[in-house]
Amino acid sequence: MQICVIPGDGIGPEVIAVATAALRVLAPDLTIKEAEAGWAVFQRTGTALPETTLALAREATAILFGAVASPSHPVPGYRSPIVELRRTLDLYANIRPTVGNEVDLVVVRENTEDLYIGRERLEDDGATAIAERVITRAASARIVRTACELARTRQAYGHPGKVTIVHKANVLRVSDGLFRTVALEVAADYPELTFEERLVDVAAMQLAAQPQRFDVIVTTNMFGDILSDIACIHGGGLGVAASSNLGHGRALFEPVHGAAPDIAGRGIANPTAALNCVVMLLDWIGRPHAAERLRSAITAVAAAGIRTPDVGGQATTREVADEILNQLSAQ
Amino acid sequence: MQICVIPGDGIGPEVIAVATAALRVLAPDLTIKEAEAGWAVFQRTGTALPETTLALAREATAILFGAVASPSHPVPGYRSPIVELRRTLDLYANIRPTVGNEVDLVVVRENTEDLYIGRERLEDDGATAIAERVITRAASARIVRTACELARTRQAYGHPGKVTIVHKANVLRVSDGLFRTVALEVAADYPELTFEERLVDVAAMQLAAQPQRFDVIVTTNMFGDILSDIACIHGGGLGVAASSNLGHGRALFEPVHGAAPDIAGRGIANPTAALNCVVMLLDWIGRPHAAERLRSAITAVAAAGIRTPDVGGQATTREVADEILNQLSAQ
Ligand SMILES: CC(C)[C@H](C(=O)O)[C@@H](O)C(=O)O
Ligand SMILES: CC(C)[C@H](C(=O)O)[C@@H](O)C(=O)O
Repeated sequence: MQICVIPGDGIGPEVIAVATAALRVLAPDLTIKEAEAGWAVFQRTGTALPETTLALAREATAILFGAVASPSHPVPGYRSPIVELRRTLDLYANIRPTVGNEVDLVVVRENTEDLYIGRERLEDDGATAIAERVITRAASARIVRTACELARTRQAYGHPGKVTIVHKANVLRVSDGLFRTVALEVAADYPELTFEERLVDVAAMQLAAQPQRFDVIVTTNMFGDILSDIACIHGGGLGVAASSNLGHGRALFEPVHGAAPDIAGRGIANPTAALNCVVMLLDWIGRPHAAERLRSAITAVAAAGIRTPDVGGQATTREVADEILNQLSAQ
Repeated sequence: MQICVIPGDGIGPEVIAVATAALRVLAPDLTIKEAEAGWAVFQRTGTALPETTLALAREATAILFGAVASPSHPVPGYRSPIVELRRTLDLYANIRPTVGNEVDLVVVRENTEDLYIGRERLEDDGATAIAERVITRAASARIVRTACELARTRQAYGHPGKVTIVHKANVLRVSDGLFRTVALEVAADYPELTFEERLVDVAAMQLAAQPQRFDVIVTTNMFGDILSDIACIHGGGLGVAASSNLGHGRALFEPVHGAAPDIAGRGIANPTAALNCVVMLLDWIGRPHAAERLRSAITAVAAAGIRTPDVGGQATTREVADEILNQLSAQ
């Protein structure tokens, strides 16, 4: 079985090195192929997602992705590799769980359309910019179905079986009107679940202040981007949050955090999010035992106080990594 | 001087009745004209913002707005009255302050464009919906300038003089790229202020978890809608948050909360947000003494524990109202 590892930019390589080391220990039979993507490779070669990377990603059963730095202005030829991978590989469901004190929720984010479609143009000599927000019936239906299936599975483990549909249909009456209508249609197929609707502004507020209200949240791409970052704070912050991007028989795992240029190269990045990605990956490829080993190593190391500064410790990335690997060999 | 009062739907009329009563006591010389808008008037007359309302709003020095209920799907002829008022009266700056424990920040939200422009269409026999997100140089420049002026004024009162520019230019490289470029251009005119940029997902997370990091936040319309709701939680919640919509020599004041159909008619709506709107209105029309009287009445009544259920009390809207009015006459 082949795994494609894409470290990327900034702290991406720093945390992915730790994740890859753990993966090699836990599943020595896997073939790991490393591939490039991101700003650095774009500057060197003129493409942020080289063909060879895309080919390796396609070949692989699962992909482990670090983080990439993206420019904040149009750069000819540059497209965000992660947005591109999600769309090209049709990884339509972005699953972002948060588990913390009395909180256990999952944000299910649509991953292929909305404002991420990349249809932007300038008018009036550059004085007006227009971006298209595209919402389709098909993408809405499959993401809501994914959320419902997840809520049903969780229900079997004692969760309330509740799906919160988040939109802004009071303003985006046509586009989020479509998302909402389709969501309610799909909901009708799941009589064992309960459904509620929230406007995105209210959802953001409640997710910040009363996260225990939520079980499974389903929403469009951009709103999901925002809501999943808010959710993070109830689960230890960006330093630990992992996500999966799921398509048909294919998956990409990535930390919710970005390339973090402010701390890159200082050796203090928290590798936990990347390690949690490995937990998800192992579960997904059908190795629950290996996943559980890593999960308990992560818990033990954090409990022993060996933590990076972002979670209140003084350890370096290297120290956390060494402890994780020591834990794994001691098991 | 003429004030136009638009109660609207749901709890709008319940809280605006209290606000209007306080306004009459504090500024008995004002001419108050009530006008209709919202879902109820739409159902009766086929228009959510009658011509007579628009005329009264135009005539008035200031407008006090309650809340309106909006449908979550396209209804022929229906347009959101508040979105319409903001655009028609060119109330381009939505100012949403939050003051709480160690938190004192303002969200300055662009109020006339972005996804609120109402350009939506269906394609593919209704299987695809497209909304246009419009960002202009002119609207971006004036909202950032408003934020900078506000930060400068606040600096004179001991605030840090910091402006956080929030965007998603790593994905919306053209539209938020324009907003960002213009923002940085305007920033150059304010060397006495400090500026920082945040991607909207990170900003939402930090606003939820570390609100004391922020002073003045400036952003586009939809992101501002979401961020200002998050900010609320640090200032007593939606029940107390007030906002002003400022144009050229014109202003509309409204609670951040909506029509709240779930509690409408039960007599338990928190009138504090609407009362805080009156405080803002009085300040804006140049009556700081009256504003201060109301501010201290609000503080005194809350301190005496006379609070509606949303802020942990058992009082009704009426009881809070009576206490406020008693306080005002006792002053
Ligand atoms: C890096 C960026 C393109 C990305 C996104 O907006 O999807 C990130 O914020 C995320 O949430 O994975
Ligand atoms: C009611 C709705 C149209 C409005 C908005 O989205 O602007 C509200 O949420 C607000 O924040 O004032």
